[in-house]
Amino acid sequence: MKIHGYFRSSAAYRVRIALNLKNIECDTVLVNLQAGDQSSPAYRAINPQGRVPALETDDHILVQSLAIIEYLDETSPSPPLLPSDPLARARVRGIANIIACDIHPLNNLAVLNYLRDDLSVDEENRTRWYQQWVRQGFDGVEPLLANSSDTGKFCHGDSPGLADICLVPQVFNAQRFNCDLSPYPTIARIFDACASLDAFDKAQPSNQPEAAQLG
Amino acid sequence: MKIHGYFRSSAAYRVRIALNLKNIECDTVLVNLQAGDQSSPAYRAINPQGRVPALETDDHILVQSLAIIEYLDETSPSPPLLPSDPLARARVRGIANIIACDIHPLNNLAVLNYLRDDLSVDEENRTRWYQQWVRQGFDGVEPLLANSSDTGKFCHGDSPGLADICLVPQVFNAQRFNCDLSPYPTIARIFDACASLDAFDKAQPSNQPEAAQLG
Repeated sequence: MKIHGYFRSSAAYRVRIALNLKNIECDTVLVNLQAGDQSSPAYRAINPQGRVPALETDDHILVQSLAIIEYLDETSPSPPLLPSDPLARARVRGIANIIACDIHPLNNLAVLNYLRDDLSVDEENRTRWYQQWVRQGFDGVEPLLANSSDTGKFCHGDSPGLADICLVPQVFNAQRFNCDLSPYPTIARIFDACASLDAFDKAQPSNQPEAAQLG
Repeated sequence: MKIHGYFRSSAAYRVRIALNLKNIECDTVLVNLQAGDQSSPAYRAINPQGRVPALETDDHILVQSLAIIEYLDETSPSPPLLPSDPLARARVRGIANIIACDIHPLNNLAVLNYLRDDLSVDEENRTRWYQQWVRQGFDGVEPLLANSSDTGKFCHGDSPGLADICLVPQVFNAQRFNCDLSPYPTIARIFDACASLDAFDKAQPSNQPEAAQLG
């Protein structure tokens, strides 16, 4: 199994965490997003959308981080990344999707480049854009976490799962873009709890082999 | 069970299709996005993110359309909206997520309003923005559909499922924004196949009770 990814991609970062939590060995293939590798014919043949990550099995290629993580959870069920009860699963997926649908895609590299190159948006306004969607999304996530007895040490109970896997790379990037996280004490507490785990730490951008060279 | 939605919301449209496919009775509560109902304290108490749809059960509120649809599929399994094989499930979720993560959130009302009001982007450039993300996403979806023997009458085999549920509202909106869909013959063919089904037709924005008044 091979994962095509890039150290700074939040979506690849999510899959790295899931692989680590499940202790799955997986080779990594670097797709250098800054150099434009994602648009090469070779990579488009792997993933026609030209995004990372893509998971290559013996005879299939899977795209989209959440689809990949659900696949890993279904084929390597221990430890589970989703609870077993349908209402609880919907809660976890709801939190994960606020981040994966309504924050992250608005702030990814392709969008920030489009704002700069096609709409001539200056750096200050690009940063404000970034912060706007983090705030809009975290304003939704924080009360879901703070006001529910389902929240434990992590987003759902006392084991890390899909929601934490989405939350951590998003907080990590929000810090890079100087987002004010003081209104989100529950998010911050869970981020710290995750950061202390090896599976999350090893998945960090700065701990990837290409970081020293490209960072 | 009540669904909080709005006739023009793609995400609410997805959930309406899923409910219809499964023949689940569900009351609808109108959240008038054009009037700003989503930001009212009353609605924020239901969904702190201020987005539609939200599904209200007897004692829970579920948010995010894909989480809601997976919940409906887990609790009312017939007809299934996902295949049973993990690789096939990942394929369907991958297609669904290209649309639900990488097209739709970039083009929703909150984002288009931000471009207009906060970044002074004119109508022509907002339309170009809209078309850019449809093209970027559909360029990824079309080959996944056209080059796979898993594709049938619908995105996966000959029964409609989660990928079709995401595809149809996206094509519907792409047409509203005059996107050129000629490079996507497989997407167009599947859209037509879905459009001929009652479950999809009844879920259309123009067939919702509020359409006559607000459309």
